[in-house]
Amino acid sequence: MASLGEEAVRNKQVILRDYVSGFPKESDMHVTTTTTTKLKVPQASNAVLLKNLYLSCDPSQRTRMTNYQSSPYFLSFTPGSPIRGHGVAKVLDSGHPNFKKGDLVRGITGWEENSLITPPATETLTKIEPTDVPLSYYIGILRMPGMTAYAGFYEVCSPKKGDYVFISAASGAVGQLVGQFAKLMGCYVVGSAGSKEKDDLLKNKLGLDDAFNYKEEPDLNAALKRYFPLGIDVYFQNVGGKMLDAVLLNMRIGGRIAVCGMISQYNCLDKPEGVHNLLHLIAKRIHIEGFLVHDYNHLYPKFLDWVLPQIKEGKIVYVEDIAEGLESAPAALVGLFTGRNVGKQVVVARE
Amino acid sequence: MASLGEEAVRNKQVILRDYVSGFPKESDMHVTTTTTTKLKVPQASNAVLLKNLYLSCDPSQRTRMTNYQSSPYFLSFTPGSPIRGHGVAKVLDSGHPNFKKGDLVRGITGWEENSLITPPATETLTKIEPTDVPLSYYIGILRMPGMTAYAGFYEVCSPKKGDYVFISAASGAVGQLVGQFAKLMGCYVVGSAGSKEKDDLLKNKLGLDDAFNYKEEPDLNAALKRYFPLGIDVYFQNVGGKMLDAVLLNMRIGGRIAVCGMISQYNCLDKPEGVHNLLHLIAKRIHIEGFLVHDYNHLYPKFLDWVLPQIKEGKIVYVEDIAEGLESAPAALVGLFTGRNVGKQVVVARE
Repeated sequence: MASLGEEAVRNKQVILRDYVSGFPKESDMHVTTTTTTKLKVPQASNAVLLKNLYLSCDPSQRTRMTNYQSSPYFLSFTPGSPIRGHGVAKVLDSGHPNFKKGDLVRGITGWEENSLITPPATETLTKIEPTDVPLSYYIGILRMPGMTAYAGFYEVCSPKKGDYVFISAASGAVGQLVGQFAKLMGCYVVGSAGSKEKDDLLKNKLGLDDAFNYKEEPDLNAALKRYFPLGIDVYFQNVGGKMLDAVLLNMRIGGRIAVCGMISQYNCLDKPEGVHNLLHLIAKRIHIEGFLVHDYNHLYPKFLDWVLPQIKEGKIVYVEDIAEGLESAPAALVGLFTGRNVGKQVVVARE
Repeated sequence: MASLGEEAVRNKQVILRDYVSGFPKESDMHVTTTTTTKLKVPQASNAVLLKNLYLSCDPSQRTRMTNYQSSPYFLSFTPGSPIRGHGVAKVLDSGHPNFKKGDLVRGITGWEENSLITPPATETLTKIEPTDVPLSYYIGILRMPGMTAYAGFYEVCSPKKGDYVFISAASGAVGQLVGQFAKLMGCYVVGSAGSKEKDDLLKNKLGLDDAFNYKEEPDLNAALKRYFPLGIDVYFQNVGGKMLDAVLLNMRIGGRIAVCGMISQYNCLDKPEGVHNLLHLIAKRIHIEGFLVHDYNHLYPKFLDWVLPQIKEGKIVYVEDIAEGLESAPAALVGLFTGRNVGKQVVVARE
């Protein structure tokens, strides 16, 4: 485009059109190109200009498409602006002393080619020290999903060797790690997922004891009874709704449920599904705990020290589903809710 | 009745006719008189013959009227037999070395004048050492409801001075104690109950900061926002259903919910109400725990040492609703589910 000014550059962006109700559709977002971003940070600012490399698709981004107005607990995206989320990026220019051109960083960025982050709060943007694992792992196993699995399983579920562990959405970004962590601890582990391909992955690649396709089970209670004839000690919940109800019927006394996510509910936030079997909490003395990964940030160095060698030795694997290019990002995000992705959904932002 | 044999005595009984679905009715039970019980235990047995003095009406008795068949978690009553429950009784005759004629005991007994308990497991029948508190307290503040409030509040709710505490069914057998315990700890305490009389009791006799009649609140969420503008730290749940949903909307970060009972659900066990707002568990990192009082039996001596002086000094009071005679027992039990009772519902079994 010869008509562009000297400093103006094109910046492809994935824009949220408007607040969403129900299932998100690709048409809730549109890909456009602006020419407003310059490849320099404004003079005398402490901003950082990023070239985005990998962008993360997370179920929680759906909740941010709901208009929460002034809720202190849920933050909404701004319609007309790029989707925001976790990413890995390279610093193109920096007015901030912590970052310099060429640095690799991870943190909260925009769904666009280049993002001007200003001011870059250190807790939302962190330099990546070089490692020999894929850079995309810094939006997966090495950051939010990895820490979510680690804190949720070890800190919230109080697991013991020999426990019967059930994981829903077991091949997802978090679930695939919980299953492996539980196997390393000596638990009996069964996962549910939404296709035969995913079940095979769970059993053959991730080493779970068994797996089932929830879409082919007309009676989830019966399915759980088949896989857990003695009941469930630990449920790592990524789903909610009907699956939680069926699990409550099959929990053992003193069972623990870590509420990590409720992906089945994110698209019906106006009218979430009812959970009917909470009475079982009493007779079975069940402990349910919701958690957010950022409460466990202090464990991150310990987690990295523990997980990096296991990745390098092949004891823990991480399955990614890579979508190429920002044009593919809306479909990749929407696909989380139909289970299209196999493993952690990553978008490659670079051209 | 001159026709009775020398040893035969009349024994009035409250019999469960058949399993119950939906709300229990007085006609689900009938009062009858048998003449089979003798005032002696069978020779060479280790049974104990009790003259029942006080019988306890507990919401959990409704759950035992449901036919659970072989569930290991819920035990059903036997239709055609007397209702069973907690009671205070005097020993008329004993073949057991731990008990002798004239002893006062508390434990599991039948809804009848005289009960032959055989064999009397020591965990279900315990001698009462003389105290100067009313004997009926041994089915109330000094036993199951008291320990439920004590363990549920101090062990499950992790309360702190200054916490905002909400109690449903706050004037009931357990709730009235949780409110007083929370006030002793320096919490801000609001209770809900089902009449103006009960609200007055909560505020004026039990010393709660405030109380409201849930039956007059068309919007429970709005009511809770009025009484807890900053949110709820601790919810002592006796109710379930819609109230739990409203509470979930009003919990603070790190809030704790002790699931003691779900009286609103005991009459619709075939189709319990749905709870829709569990998504709030995650963003607010809420901890929900179901508990059963008998897991905390080891704390009973400590509890007695703590609570008896406070009762004697008038720092803790206990409100009882006394029904006279076994004929009044069916109505007293059914009344728990319409909120007819004010305080702990007791039936006086003696003539």
